[in-house]
Amino acid sequence: MAEDIAQSRQDYYARIAKRHLSPLWESLHTLVPPTPAPRCLPFLWKYDELRADIMASGELISAEEAVRRVLILENPGLQGQASITQTLYAGLQLILPGEIAPSHRHTQSALRFIVEGRGAYTAVNGERTTMHPGDFIITPSWTWHDHGNAESVDGGEPVVWLDGLDIPLIRALDAGFAENYPAATQVLTRAEGDSMARYGYNMLPVRHDAPAVGASPLFNYPYSRSRETLDQLYRHGELDPWDGVKLRYVNPATGGAAIPTMATFMQLLPAGFQGRTYRSTDSTVYSVVEGRGSARIGEQEFAFGPRDVFVAPSWLPVQLAALHDTVIFSYSDRPVQAALGLWRESREG
Amino acid sequence: MAEDIAQSRQDYYARIAKRHLSPLWESLHTLVPPTPAPRCLPFLWKYDELRADIMASGELISAEEAVRRVLILENPGLQGQASITQTLYAGLQLILPGEIAPSHRHTQSALRFIVEGRGAYTAVNGERTTMHPGDFIITPSWTWHDHGNAESVDGGEPVVWLDGLDIPLIRALDAGFAENYPAATQVLTRAEGDSMARYGYNMLPVRHDAPAVGASPLFNYPYSRSRETLDQLYRHGELDPWDGVKLRYVNPATGGAAIPTMATFMQLLPAGFQGRTYRSTDSTVYSVVEGRGSARIGEQEFAFGPRDVFVAPSWLPVQLAALHDTVIFSYSDRPVQAALGLWRESREG
Amino acid sequence: MAEDIAQSRQDYYARIAKRHLSPLWESLHTLVPPTPAPRCLPFLWKYDELRADIMASGELISAEEAVRRVLILENPGLQGQASITQTLYAGLQLILPGEIAPSHRHTQSALRFIVEGRGAYTAVNGERTTMHPGDFIITPSWTWHDHGNAESVDGGEPVVWLDGLDIPLIRALDAGFAENYPAATQVLTRAEGDSMARYGYNMLPVRHDAPAVGASPLFNYPYSRSRETLDQLYRHGELDPWDGVKLRYVNPATGGAAIPTMATFMQLLPAGFQGRTYRSTDSTVYSVVEGRGSARIGEQEFAFGPRDVFVAPSWLPVQLAALHDTVIFSYSDRPVQAALGLWRESREG
Amino acid sequence: MAEDIAQSRQDYYARIAKRHLSPLWESLHTLVPPTPAPRCLPFLWKYDELRADIMASGELISAEEAVRRVLILENPGLQGQASITQTLYAGLQLILPGEIAPSHRHTQSALRFIVEGRGAYTAVNGERTTMHPGDFIITPSWTWHDHGNAESVDGGEPVVWLDGLDIPLIRALDAGFAENYPAATQVLTRAEGDSMARYGYNMLPVRHDAPAVGASPLFNYPYSRSRETLDQLYRHGELDPWDGVKLRYVNPATGGAAIPTMATFMQLLPAGFQGRTYRSTDSTVYSVVEGRGSARIGEQEFAFGPRDVFVAPSWLPVQLAALHDTVIFSYSDRPVQAALGLWRESREG
Repeated sequence: MAEDIAQSRQDYYARIAKRHLSPLWESLHTLVPPTPAPRCLPFLWKYDELRADIMASGELISAEEAVRRVLILENPGLQGQASITQTLYAGLQLILPGEIAPSHRHTQSALRFIVEGRGAYTAVNGERTTMHPGDFIITPSWTWHDHGNAESVDGGEPVVWLDGLDIPLIRALDAGFAENYPAATQVLTRAEGDSMARYGYNMLPVRHDAPAVGASPLFNYPYSRSRETLDQLYRHGELDPWDGVKLRYVNPATGGAAIPTMATFMQLLPAGFQGRTYRSTDSTVYSVVEGRGSARIGEQEFAFGPRDVFVAPSWLPVQLAALHDTVIFSYSDRPVQAALGLWRESREG
Repeated sequence: MAEDIAQSRQDYYARIAKRHLSPLWESLHTLVPPTPAPRCLPFLWKYDELRADIMASGELISAEEAVRRVLILENPGLQGQASITQTLYAGLQLILPGEIAPSHRHTQSALRFIVEGRGAYTAVNGERTTMHPGDFIITPSWTWHDHGNAESVDGGEPVVWLDGLDIPLIRALDAGFAENYPAATQVLTRAEGDSMARYGYNMLPVRHDAPAVGASPLFNYPYSRSRETLDQLYRHGELDPWDGVKLRYVNPATGGAAIPTMATFMQLLPAGFQGRTYRSTDSTVYSVVEGRGSARIGEQEFAFGPRDVFVAPSWLPVQLAALHDTVIFSYSDRPVQAALGLWRESREG
Repeated sequence: MAEDIAQSRQDYYARIAKRHLSPLWESLHTLVPPTPAPRCLPFLWKYDELRADIMASGELISAEEAVRRVLILENPGLQGQASITQTLYAGLQLILPGEIAPSHRHTQSALRFIVEGRGAYTAVNGERTTMHPGDFIITPSWTWHDHGNAESVDGGEPVVWLDGLDIPLIRALDAGFAENYPAATQVLTRAEGDSMARYGYNMLPVRHDAPAVGASPLFNYPYSRSRETLDQLYRHGELDPWDGVKLRYVNPATGGAAIPTMATFMQLLPAGFQGRTYRSTDSTVYSVVEGRGSARIGEQEFAFGPRDVFVAPSWLPVQLAALHDTVIFSYSDRPVQAALGLWRESREG
Repeated sequence: MAEDIAQSRQDYYARIAKRHLSPLWESLHTLVPPTPAPRCLPFLWKYDELRADIMASGELISAEEAVRRVLILENPGLQGQASITQTLYAGLQLILPGEIAPSHRHTQSALRFIVEGRGAYTAVNGERTTMHPGDFIITPSWTWHDHGNAESVDGGEPVVWLDGLDIPLIRALDAGFAENYPAATQVLTRAEGDSMARYGYNMLPVRHDAPAVGASPLFNYPYSRSRETLDQLYRHGELDPWDGVKLRYVNPATGGAAIPTMATFMQLLPAGFQGRTYRSTDSTVYSVVEGRGSARIGEQEFAFGPRDVFVAPSWLPVQLAALHDTVIFSYSDRPVQAALGLWRESREG
């Protein structure tokens, strides 16, 4: 009898499938899960193991031919999707002395977090900024941007940075547009440091109009500043049992995230820090700047050191610990979730 | 020689794949397309052809066993994903006289657009509202909701509505939570009509605090009102060459969308209307209320009649025409795109 | 010795006065009082006593000569300042059958609350609306507006309404501009009822753009609606020990006040209601629509009946009581105080 | 005949005055002026002429007895009102080595712009900040604050700053509250520099929640920063024909004004600058930091030098010129006017 029912349901499912219908009741629990069931997995990329591969790419293809010579960090749970989480992309980009990554723009927003090397720059909206390890730089949605390494082939050094983009999110929204600039490098119209002078000191030009939704007009947040800020707060007594000392980068014209689709953070864990368990719905990508320690994510434990990248999926418990004074940069889609009233977090014992 | 390079690149790609790395330059154009390249396809479900299937589901499974007895309208380009667009879900739900669809809540937001039948209700946050064809009803994120058909088995009629949810979006964000209510139906604490009296007349209770992000406190927008409004505006001379007379439903406490993740619209196309070509980045689901006409979407033309559902993917040109006076309800993820600065539209000749 | 000091201080004060300097320490307590020390006084204008005066104005001057034939309700504590509170103005305007109050505009915002009579209209931005007792009508900042009484001299009746404006506030800000329209009545471009159809039903035209700061696009809130709403909420069980049933009028495009500088309220006190003591920093003007009762304001008690106007200064305790079912309209500068983070209230035992 | 009418009107006015009524038509033009008609006058206080008076106050009364030893700059058009414009207050405060101005709080917001001397501090919310000439410091509404001069009576020097408050505005709103702290100085709970580390570098503590309306959490904007910023922008080519190089101070958590009721600005006019004519509805108070030049305000011309204070009333044409490189701080009620949709400006030839 039950078999009859089962069979007639199967027949029915097969019949309606031809009309592009499917029965919700067979998948309701999966579609509307009791708690987040991310397909992305916790994972850590050890920089020491990747570095040779990154450098090898420099011999295999030029920056110009590649347009962007980047190794995508692909989440093992999301193979073939060029994604580190369901909404975010991460890659390591290499630029060699004398190279140029040609100018283009796209609706995807990008962040650059500098991992190693000196001598490279990013140009955005007519202004260049020199990149130093630990700097956080943005190339907002639909802004022309190009990168280069101004050093001579002899004197310079390779520069590597972490690219964070909202590519999977924009793909899910089917809202991607892109254009190439008519030349390899954009015309420069402003002196280096102009945007820092204009927006970086808690003052704004009197006629600056900030759009209600928009990226920061400041596009370089130098490590010298953020490192010093973390230190000062630590010296002043700030230490959260979950986060250590943790700051978020802000758009000085709104107080919101520097990029509308991606929150970015920098945190200090002093030597010996044993963080409590935290979870939140924004899957997060971490990039270690200094120090060594470990991240327990769900059931897995990862030891990390300088320049390693790791990812913590939505709602998995995360616990950070530091052997030495440790500085970690991170990014997630938190502003998207917050703008839609969906973001949740839990601070546990 | 070129073969050598090609070969060494392939070797390299195979080697780095083991480290969960992949070369951006092989997929850049796909990941960052010049214009949106939606995988969802234009499609139309003819209600007359589906109706028998919907009614058959009523014999195959009870509302209580199914929890929600819904046939998912699955986009032919997104098979197996329970999605009508990349971010949205659509289904047709049936409830028979005497049945109850038990109470639960989830972070996914839902809209109900009533397609046929009388005698059913939706309960939200302690208040019931009776559903009539053409009514637009919301069950906001994380609110308890249940449905029922209060008529006796003999006297009543089957009721069908279109369910619109943001299931794929919430899945992409990995932000889904759900809970069952301890009983089949929630406790009612407010008289029917209470929320309409409270919020529906351009007045608000003096102590009502609207959260900055949130769904409308009004949860039923009756067809009697929206139909009359369209008529009046048409009589007053409103007629847009692209849209006819088109209104958006608003949260009376903020002026924003009734649901933070989904915009909803109602439009009137008078008999003989030949709309101009329009495109926008928010893939849109349409449900025909009254009238007959045609929708040209990309290269395809669809004839539509009452209760048909059709979908227009992102950035495909859409042209609507009406044989008779036609009323169409529609929904999309526009508020998500607008909140992130991503929404674009183009009104063409 | 103390006299010497006192004398030398007086000499000093006299000397520095010539340089337009004065000593803060002699007035600090007055300038920075421990609690608000309003100069405006509690007062009630009995409509029955004023009515003859209002009607007499109709024989003394024509609406056209007067431009606006209004008797200003001048607070006894603010004589000569044309103010009912320190930021607000109130007046009773009379328009006789066949008369026109010519079109002009000014940055001062105005509300009209209809007190008696039928047959008059207000035109705003190209649309006329007919005025009925209890209707709340706005003429927003810098919008052309004129009033008229469309009835014939024989058949019609005098119409009186309460004008509420932010004249003293705009004067304090020195931000007043005004212009006359080139004709007595503005050109009508929209049918009566257009704005109600467009904005009054929790839908908005899809291309309506609400400015971040601005008045409601809906300009008539009819009494038929607000009266019915109060009744329904009362029947549904709403009754606040301080307020009875109290609603605020909202801008349907933002959820904020209908006028950026003035909040407006309508409340129902059922027969026998004895309100608790309330105080707030927004001095408030009340206009009784129906019913009888009393208002205790500070140490004074005022008996009120239909059409009476009374004023409660900032931070004085107010207690309302009703003999019969009573409906009261009120307005204050609450949105100004809220926008600046200054508004306070206290609900007492 | 006309006399009869005039007489009967006068009789009528006298009669209704007893009922606290007055005829709008006799004052309409004054109450609703075609353009702003400020009662405050253009005026300049020459610091050199005042300095002796300020220092003399130090011998006449102690800071502790005075609570705040301030000479109010009283606008010649607003005598006896302790106002420099209709909404703003300005005063020069003196604190001598070893003195304390005891801790209190009030709903009036205050700014301090340091004019001369070293060694003094302001404490706000548990943190002290040292004051240097040119620093802009805020003590937001309802925050405990006290001032002191930490130097010994022998070694230190008198410190003078400009106090800017919204006293007249708060008085017009009848929204003033004040309290004394139980001790002369508040308990310090945070190290000096804490708020600068926390909020001053385009990062915010991850758990900092900015209220929708509120003052900046950063309370000292040092001159070293703002001076350098002006210089850099000037070197980068910024020069507006009306303003020179002009910046506004912002709340880093919102991008809005540092104080909800007062905008604050700093501008650089290079030697030889001849500004074009500007007018705006926010009457503005200027304090010269460095340089010499002239201000043409309406029909009057004022020569200014270091530490002079001058005021430009609403809508009067203002033209600034500089003999030497000149830096000027200024403040006005612009955020109030902007929040209410009332602010206007005009840039003329």
